[in-house]
Order: sequence, then structure tokens, then C-alpha cells
Amino acid sequence: MSPVAGEMEKEIEEANQRAVEKILRSEPVLVGIGRARDAIPGMDDRTILHAGPPIGWERMCGPMRGAVAGALIYEGRAESFDEAASVVSSGEVKFSPCHHHSAVGPMTGVVSPSMPVFIVKNEAFGNLAHCTMNEGLGKVLRFGAYDSEVIERLKWMEEELAPALKAVLEIGSIKLKPLISKALAMGDECHNRNVASTSLFLNEVVSTLLGTDLEKGEMKRVVEFIGANKHFFLNLSMASCKSMADAAHGIEYSTVVTAMARNGTDFGIRVSGLGEEWFTDAAPMPVGLYFPGYSEQDANPDLGDSTITETVGLGGFAMAAAPQMVQFVGGTPQDALNATREMGEITVLRNPSFSIPALDFAGTPTGIDVLKVVETGITPRINTGIAHREQGIGQIGAGLVRAPMECFKRALESMAKRVGA
Amino acid sequence: MSPVAGEMEKEIEEANQRAVEKILRSEPVLVGIGRARDAIPGMDDRTILHAGPPIGWERMCGPMRGAVAGALIYEGRAESFDEAASVVSSGEVKFSPCHHHSAVGPMTGVVSPSMPVFIVKNEAFGNLAHCTMNEGLGKVLRFGAYDSEVIERLKWMEEELAPALKAVLEIGSIKLKPLISKALAMGDECHNRNVASTSLFLNEVVSTLLGTDLEKGEMKRVVEFIGANKHFFLNLSMASCKSMADAAHGIEYSTVVTAMARNGTDFGIRVSGLGEEWFTDAAPMPVGLYFPGYSEQDANPDLGDSTITETVGLGGFAMAAAPQMVQFVGGTPQDALNATREMGEITVLRNPSFSIPALDFAGTPTGIDVLKVVETGITPRINTGIAHREQGIGQIGAGLVRAPMECFKRALESMAKRVGA
Repeated sequence: MSPVAGEMEKEIEEANQRAVEKILRSEPVLVGIGRARDAIPGMDDRTILHAGPPIGWERMCGPMRGAVAGALIYEGRAESFDEAASVVSSGEVKFSPCHHHSAVGPMTGVVSPSMPVFIVKNEAFGNLAHCTMNEGLGKVLRFGAYDSEVIERLKWMEEELAPALKAVLEIGSIKLKPLISKALAMGDECHNRNVASTSLFLNEVVSTLLGTDLEKGEMKRVVEFIGANKHFFLNLSMASCKSMADAAHGIEYSTVVTAMARNGTDFGIRVSGLGEEWFTDAAPMPVGLYFPGYSEQDANPDLGDSTITETVGLGGFAMAAAPQMVQFVGGTPQDALNATREMGEITVLRNPSFSIPALDFAGTPTGIDVLKVVETGITPRINTGIAHREQGIGQIGAGLVRAPMECFKRALESMAKRVGA
Repeated sequence: MSPVAGEMEKEIEEANQRAVEKILRSEPVLVGIGRARDAIPGMDDRTILHAGPPIGWERMCGPMRGAVAGALIYEGRAESFDEAASVVSSGEVKFSPCHHHSAVGPMTGVVSPSMPVFIVKNEAFGNLAHCTMNEGLGKVLRFGAYDSEVIERLKWMEEELAPALKAVLEIGSIKLKPLISKALAMGDECHNRNVASTSLFLNEVVSTLLGTDLEKGEMKRVVEFIGANKHFFLNLSMASCKSMADAAHGIEYSTVVTAMARNGTDFGIRVSGLGEEWFTDAAPMPVGLYFPGYSEQDANPDLGDSTITETVGLGGFAMAAAPQMVQFVGGTPQDALNATREMGEITVLRNPSFSIPALDFAGTPTGIDVLKVVETGITPRINTGIAHREQGIGQIGAGLVRAPMECFKRALESMAKRVGA
């Protein structure tokens, strides 16, 4: 029996339809690049944003501490991990979740004031979303690495990549929804596979870039950096999805999930009709494929805001679009079709703009309904990267994971209280 | 009962294995750009190459005559269709099939001496293949159009596009097999859908292009031209396939097809163990989707050398990789899977380099065996463009067609005679 019965059930259903229609009507457009402290609301020089629900230094996992230290080194506020730890304990850093600032960050999700960020506007509703630029795979800040190679790359991104893309966007903005839509017909699920979307994005960028005043050497470095990183589009996919999910937030009685995020310690969700509250449980361990020399023993629990893609129907929910992904865990293309079909059991609608050829062109299952998750016992599927559990190392694999049921049960209890059931 | 029984059957089987292994081991690489009369063997200032088996002006279809006229205008040898027809009747033009010159051409396949051509080298066996550059869709020479817009575009391709790509290739050649392989996992079948392959190719070109001395305006025009033409890679796919098929030609007793081609009047095949002979029948009519304002009544019979893609396992044989293609004829993704599976009935091997995710990563069915075609009654499936039957108009649609059985029967009779069966 449903925990919210009768009249309320209809009210919730209607609210959920309204919420998901807002996701479907969203139009994410990349409109600019800004410095985090200028572009992101509520951010100042002392703020460091992180992935997932709120967390302090004491409970932070290794890779997130590593990324915070890297950010403080990058900002010139420390020269080593230990110095960074002192800066933190002196109280000079304010931690806050990306999600509290119209932002998302992959893996540790660490954003510090000087980092350049993409500015994505949801042109259907006017809200903005922000995300850093993707550094590539392996030893990178978002996976907790912070050595000089990492910091130098971030500096180059700030000093050369960001201004180049800014110059491109000043000539014309780039619509992201059509890129995601095309990429879903080209083997991407736009979370852990971004090959087609990155290629199409680079095609769009290049012709405009050639119309700027930049010198050819700089253009070449920018094009090669994006071209060499098959995940460059991930952060744009994430910002798009954040702009879509935020549009669906704050609808009274809606049990549609508007954020799923992990800080590497806790997994948390937020729900459209339940305000700013997080419903959390321990972050689960992903099952996946490890880079040579690493195993599950080395892995950190699930981490990052990139689950915003699943929240609006991409990633694990669009697995049928990306059968190559199941190879991470020795699965078959049939498993990929089944994964997407299963997610149809816990969602409100199919998104006709995100059509999957292999499923007779059906749209991706969109709008996770807390009620349906609890009723069916089916938890959201998530595709993810895997970070080393210690600071300073970086990515060690990629794999699959499920959101913990407890978060959804807690959210449902809260809704039941709210509606007086 | 097989028409070539006993001992011979085993000999043929072994010859076919050898032929298909040569297709599989082929390594097509784009090594350069040349002027047709310099790069293509056996071509002189009076030669005009065309698609399909040999044909003269009298039996040529409308679009092929239009393309010949356009080529003579482009070469400065005529100023109108009627003048071009006079040049032809005066005997000043030598017609020859592309296939007789290590070349292939899409649709009418017309290649005249000044046209720039891609030079593809099969690095595993050393043989070369050639193809013109893709002009785009609609009113273009290869579909029989020849007005000033068409000629001006061809001139620009000669004067700006070809030198730019040549400069790129002088810095480094481009391996085509990995691009085809990746594109098959991204929704392309590399005949009638070349979205991913074109995008990936453009990315490869751009970073090298930025290292050349060309000025940015020229780079921009080149990048925009390629980026705006979702079929740009088709001609590279064709040249790759020609270089692969030619490697498998000339193996005694082999009944593997090494060319399928249409001149818009006749459909012809060549067979590995049957020398230079063409086995022909009337070109069939495609079934397809027409551009607004056109119907089957306007369509020319099947046309072009692009069936070289099916000959080595792409196009209609790789339909399972490109479920979007079946939408041309109102089909379902299941039809696409079935199409590829059916082609498995008439081929020798699967190509592990051309793996299709939706078929549990099985390779594309490769090496059409004349014996199997005749025994099963299953004819090769072909994806194709559709030209208007009259000269001067251009493309009016795209669709599907089957190779005529008669060609295979004739080839088999010839093989039976040759082996004394």
C-alpha cells in the first residue's frame, strides 16, 4: 500500500508531471565562461565548493581532501598538503556544496574562486548552472591529485583554454540540448561516455575559434587539449542537467528527485517538493573495471555530482544508448537495454528529445519518483568514475553503482509528514 | 546441389578464406591528395571516369550525362550541356569506369582530369585507391547537376580545400580503419550515414591544419565546409573499401565479390577469381524516402560505386550499427539487426575490426560469396542515395535496394566453366 494514499496521491502525481515537464521543456545553452568567484552566486574568496551533500574537513574522504589541498595550492594559499590542512584548520576556508550555488562538480567537485567555469543558461526558464572545465583522466584534481603537473594544467586552463572558449562564446552561444540529443544516437550516455558529444562540441567550437583574433599556436593547443580528452563534454552535460533539474525544483508535493550527489562519504538526494533538505546515507562502493595495478581495495566510495545526469535521464538511465559501457563490468548489450527499461519503472515520463535508437527511438526514462523507488524497491542506476581512496593519486577506474535505498525512504517519510499522511 | 561440387568446393572455400583474410588485414591510410590525371593510373587529359561497369554516352542515364557535361564545363572544354554533348560525340572524350583505375566514385562517379582526389594506401599490401572529395548533398555534380553553383563549388574545392588537406597530409597521414571502426560504434554504417566518421575526421584534420602556414580565413572555410557536410567521410570510406577489396582480387578459384557497382543503367559485379570481367544486369530501383516534391517516378535506377562499402561489409551489411537508417523506409531497429544478420548468410567471415555493439560486438559480415548468394537466394542489401532521372537536377532522396540475382548467377556460371564443373 502506498504510504501517501487517496487524494494526496493524485496531487503528487500532478505535481510530478509538472516537475518532469519542466525538465523536458528545458533548453540548456552554453552562454559564457566566468571566474568562479564572479560567476557563481554566493561564492567569495574564502569559499571552496565540493561535490555532494554538505561535509566538513573531518569527514571528507581522501580524494576530496587532496582536491581541496590542490585548490589551495592553485590559489597560492598553500604550498603543500600539510600547509593546506593548516589553512583549513585555521578556519580560513568556507566549505559549501556546489549544489547550493547553482553548480555541479564531477568527482570531488572542488571549485575554488579563481577557477574558470562554464555558464549554462536554461533558456526556457532563465536559471543558470555552472561547472568547471574537464581536466582529462588519470592524475587530475577532481580525482584528488594535486602535484605540480595537476596545478600547471589548471593554470593553463585558466590562462589559455578559458579565454579561448570565452572568445568563442562571445561570438555565439552553443546550444547543448541538440548536442546531447545527437550524442545519444552515437553511443554516448553523456555521463561516463562522452566521445560523440565531445567530438561534435569540438566541431562547433573550431569554426568559431578560427574567426577570433587568437593566434594559431593557442588555437592549436586548445583544439588538441579538447580533442585528446574524450570526457571534455562531461562537465557541459552536467551543467546542462543541473540547469534542467533546478527548473523542476520547488514544486509543492512533487516527489521527483532534483539532485543525487555524493561527497565520497555520504550519498544524498534532494526532492522537488522538499525544499533544500538532503536525504543521505553512506556512499556505496562502485563495481567496475580498474586501471592496471589497482583493485577494489584501493577504491574510494562513490563520489561526485555527476549523478545529476542520471537525475534527468542520462548516464545509467540512458545505458541502452551506450552498449559499449557495459563492457566495464563484463555485461552484454542486452544488459544495457534492460538497465534503461528498468529505470522506466521508477520514472515519471520518457524524454522525447533524448531518444534512443536501440529502444525503437523511445526517450530516456526521466524524473525519478521517490514513491516509485520505494514501492518497486528499484534504486537508480549510476555510471561513475572511481577515485583512489587516498589523497594525491587520482582516477583508478570506472564502473557502475546503485543509489542507496535509505535516501529515498527518508525522503518519502519527510513527504508523508509534510502532507500529513 | 552445389553447381561446383566435390574437390573444387574445398578449393573454392580455401581461396575465399584467403581473399577475405586480405580484406581483414587491410590497413587503409589517407596518404595524400593529387590531381586526378597525375594520381590516377591510366588517366590522361581526355579521360573521364564514371561509376559502375563500362558504358558509353548512348546508354548513360540522365544524371551521368549531366555530370559528364558538368565535368567538361569545369574543365573549360564546354560552356553548356549541348556543347558538352558535342565534345563527347566528336570522340574527344574517353570514358572508363573508375574501377578500372584503382578508383571509385559516388553516384555518377564522374572524375575529370583536374579534379583533386584522395589517395588512400592500403599499407598492409601497398595498393592505392582514389576517390574525389564529397561536395555535399542536393544539387551537386555526382547526382547529375552542373549549374554555375556546382562548378564554382568544384573550383573552390580544387583551389582551396584540396591544397589545405594536402598541407595537412604532408605533416602526417591519417589512418582510416580506426575511424571507420569507431564510427560503427557511433551510429554510422559508413555508406549512407557518416555523421560520426566525419566529425572524428574533422577533429583529426583541425589540429594538424592549425600547424600549417595557411591563413585563418582559409582554415575557417575548410573547417566549415567539412563540418557542414555530414557525408564528407563517405568518399574516404569508399576509397578505404576499394583499397581493401582490391587486395582481395585475383585469387584463383575465389568466388568472393571484389566490386559491386552501378552506372545508373547496369548493375555489375566483379569476382576475385574471375579476372577483370563484369557480370551485369539492369540496375534496380531503390525504395526510399524522397525530398519534398519528388517521388519514385522521378528517380533514376540505382547508381554509383559506393556499393564498394557493402562489398567489404559496411553500408547495408553494417545496418545494425545504424538503426537510424531504417527510418528512411519506415523500418524498426529490429529490422536493422535482421538486415546485418541476414548478410551473415551470404558472407565468408565476420570482421573483428568492424565490431557492432548492438550485435554483442560481432563483426560486420564480410566477403560476399557468389556461391552462397545463389544457393540461399539472398542478394546483398545496399544503402544508397537517389538521383533524379534527368540531368541537371541532383539528389532527390535516399533509400535501400538489393543487388540483382542475375549478376551472381552469371558469375557462378563463369566460375563453373573455369573450374570445368
